Amino acid sequence: MRAVDIIMKKRGGPGNPGGSELTREEIEFLIGGYVAGTIPDYQVSSWLMAVFFNGMTFAEAGVLTDVMLKSGKTIDLSGIAGPFVDKHSTGGVGDKISLPLAPIVAACGVKVPMMSGRALGHTGGTLDKLESIDGFRTGLSVPEFREYIEKCGFAMTGQTKEIVPADRLLYALRDVTGTVESIPLITASILSKKVAEGAEALVFDVKCGSGAFMKNLADATGLAESLAGTGKAMGKRVVCLITNMEDPLGEMVGNFLEIEETLDVLEGRGPADVTELTLALGAWMVVLGGKAATYEEGRGMCEKAVTSGEAMRLFLENVRLQGGAPDRLLAERGKRRSPHKAELRSPADGYVTGIDAFKTGLAGVHLGVGRNRTDEAVCPEAGLKIHRRRGDAVRKGDLVMEVWGKDAQCLSPALGLLAEALSVGPEKPEPVAMVLKEISAV
Amino acid sequence: MRAVDIIMKKRGGPGNPGGSELTREEIEFLIGGYVAGTIPDYQVSSWLMAVFFNGMTFAEAGVLTDVMLKSGKTIDLSGIAGPFVDKHSTGGVGDKISLPLAPIVAACGVKVPMMSGRALGHTGGTLDKLESIDGFRTGLSVPEFREYIEKCGFAMTGQTKEIVPADRLLYALRDVTGTVESIPLITASILSKKVAEGAEALVFDVKCGSGAFMKNLADATGLAESLAGTGKAMGKRVVCLITNMEDPLGEMVGNFLEIEETLDVLEGRGPADVTELTLALGAWMVVLGGKAATYEEGRGMCEKAVTSGEAMRLFLENVRLQGGAPDRLLAERGKRRSPHKAELRSPADGYVTGIDAFKTGLAGVHLGVGRNRTDEAVCPEAGLKIHRRRGDAVRKGDLVMEVWGKDAQCLSPALGLLAEALSVGPEKPEPVAMVLKEISAV
Repeated sequence: MRAVDIIMKKRGGPGNPGGSELTREEIEFLIGGYVAGTIPDYQVSSWLMAVFFNGMTFAEAGVLTDVMLKSGKTIDLSGIAGPFVDKHSTGGVGDKISLPLAPIVAACGVKVPMMSGRALGHTGGTLDKLESIDGFRTGLSVPEFREYIEKCGFAMTGQTKEIVPADRLLYALRDVTGTVESIPLITASILSKKVAEGAEALVFDVKCGSGAFMKNLADATGLAESLAGTGKAMGKRVVCLITNMEDPLGEMVGNFLEIEETLDVLEGRGPADVTELTLALGAWMVVLGGKAATYEEGRGMCEKAVTSGEAMRLFLENVRLQGGAPDRLLAERGKRRSPHKAELRSPADGYVTGIDAFKTGLAGVHLGVGRNRTDEAVCPEAGLKIHRRRGDAVRKGDLVMEVWGKDAQCLSPALGLLAEALSVGPEKPEPVAMVLKEISAV
Repeated sequence: MRAVDIIMKKRGGPGNPGGSELTREEIEFLIGGYVAGTIPDYQVSSWLMAVFFNGMTFAEAGVLTDVMLKSGKTIDLSGIAGPFVDKHSTGGVGDKISLPLAPIVAACGVKVPMMSGRALGHTGGTLDKLESIDGFRTGLSVPEFREYIEKCGFAMTGQTKEIVPADRLLYALRDVTGTVESIPLITASILSKKVAEGAEALVFDVKCGSGAFMKNLADATGLAESLAGTGKAMGKRVVCLITNMEDPLGEMVGNFLEIEETLDVLEGRGPADVTELTLALGAWMVVLGGKAATYEEGRGMCEKAVTSGEAMRLFLENVRLQGGAPDRLLAERGKRRSPHKAELRSPADGYVTGIDAFKTGLAGVHLGVGRNRTDEAVCPEAGLKIHRRRGDAVRKGDLVMEVWGKDAQCLSPALGLLAEALSVGPEKPEPVAMVLKEISAV
């Protein structure tokens, strides 16, 4: 077997313009060889570009996912009573859904083994938000991860180096070779990590809009169908919700600020959009975990997990297990804010017709909520609170956002971006649904 | 400027499916950086694959050619009276046209600065053929190259390491990354070397058929149009002839055997197809060199160069200048044959309906005419003489080919391939034109 033949098979030619489906042996030879160091990066990068153009079948992407998965260790959850269901979001602005979702679903009897990422570019990261809780540890060992899942039904950790090393290698290569934006490669990258963490079924929140990787419904649908189809090819039950990411999700964008909004949701008084999305995703997770027969039943169970206080109890128990102090966290609500503060006020009378999520995310990077490079630190107390959201009436000079920055210098560029993000017009905009589309392969 | 942005610009995306034309600065950054070692091969290979899919405009391929050209030295022919016109063939089986063509065109007053290649795979190489003449040197220094052009109107040499180093680097990378078969990349590779040798105008023999790189007229037309259009974008006058390569060219396939057929052509008694193609290419070279106003006039001049003996005189003078012994060469005609001989006889009565050039070329590799790897030696005395060609009547048992191999062992596999190459049928096949199509950009 030669790598160049595999590349040409995927590439195709005049008589076979779309190329051909690769076999498991061929994908193992190429990707296994790359991880082992026997296939050079220049062959893998030309293959990646051929995949960009010609795509992969779901079966083929499933094999790629499986080969990537087997490049490293997987989390062994045997001995713990399941079911194990996880959620993955493709990343957005103000997306703190994992934080209230995990304890709500855990309260319904479904275990959530959650591995999350960090903020990068305009999107936030669950690990950075959790670490804004003093003492909270996100680098769990496998025994700790198992123990906390057993004790409170879920655990939150970062991906270790042993998990899917092929994804780290391939992602680094894709990043510099113009091959990031490939649906099957994105699918294999996401799925390999989620399957490695031990999930038996998966719910995906595929974001769509200015603040998302997928800017329109067609692209988001393509990714959702690929995640569902590839997941199914691997024997996993998958539900994808395509959800609106034109505006930031919720009222809070920041690290500790989003922990506060999580507490609001768990107390049943969170913003409508965050609550809606949490319950929709939670309902499907409960269904996929076999604890409810229908979406409506699952949703009712999630609502009850909030009203009963059980979800809040599990969240605080998880904070305690993972090194934080629940009492101190509750005492700090509304108080942990950077002293470097500014305000954005409405430039006109009318209605807020939109707050661009992408620009808000970029402002967040300036403020210290996020980062441009993986080695940058974030500021727990930075962020923004949105007082007037899409559809709200405003008068000129009304407070639209409170803004907290990591330092005094960052406020001006951030405010400039936020002023650009804010649209005010004379007409009240039509409401937009939170969940735009459901795609499942169960 | 970042390489990844250049890759993505060529690659395109959902809103720009064909990618965009790159600027000179971008191509210089990428290819210049690759040659200088600042751009890694894995970025160049993903760019090459993007070019495979999205192509290049003629202007863009012209810039790539120019950037490649400027990666090394070019031959300075200043001080020598021109015009300088060269021919390039895309490679075939039995293609010895350069050998009679150069002295014929030189006899018409057009200088031919010819840099040629070696046999590889099923195709032969002009340098290997020339080196079958005892003493003939193909590794000329630039002063020698200039001197011989001045003295006999043409010179034949190999490409030195200083000429277009970017092409050697890029070709080696394309070879292992599945990006050989790209029209603009093939164009830039061919043109950069031809322009570097000092040619002001170029005639291309684009082979089409089983023994050619381009198997059908559509593909050959694509390459011819790219060579003509890209050459024009660089300010060079270009004529492309698309010519038949279904059957081997001429009666002789081999190294010294093709030198013998060259002498036949120069004496006006070569095979009709070799003579026709030599005169057609020569006529255009004389026109492009400004020594004739029309194709017909140019062709008449080439014919006269043969009948007058001037072309033969120049050929032998070149042999002498480049280290060979003309008298000895003439004395060896019909005598230098390997002792390991076999014959292919007709399996039936009827007509030869075809001799597959590709399989004949592969048989040639077995015999020692060509090579599979660049470090293999060839055998000057190996090859084959075709006694019955396409359209000839045969009876079962008639001698179709005499075959000479480098050793005794190679004859059997070669004969097997030649038997497969030979088709005999009851109907006399329709004649096929030598020149299938002309494409020019003058």
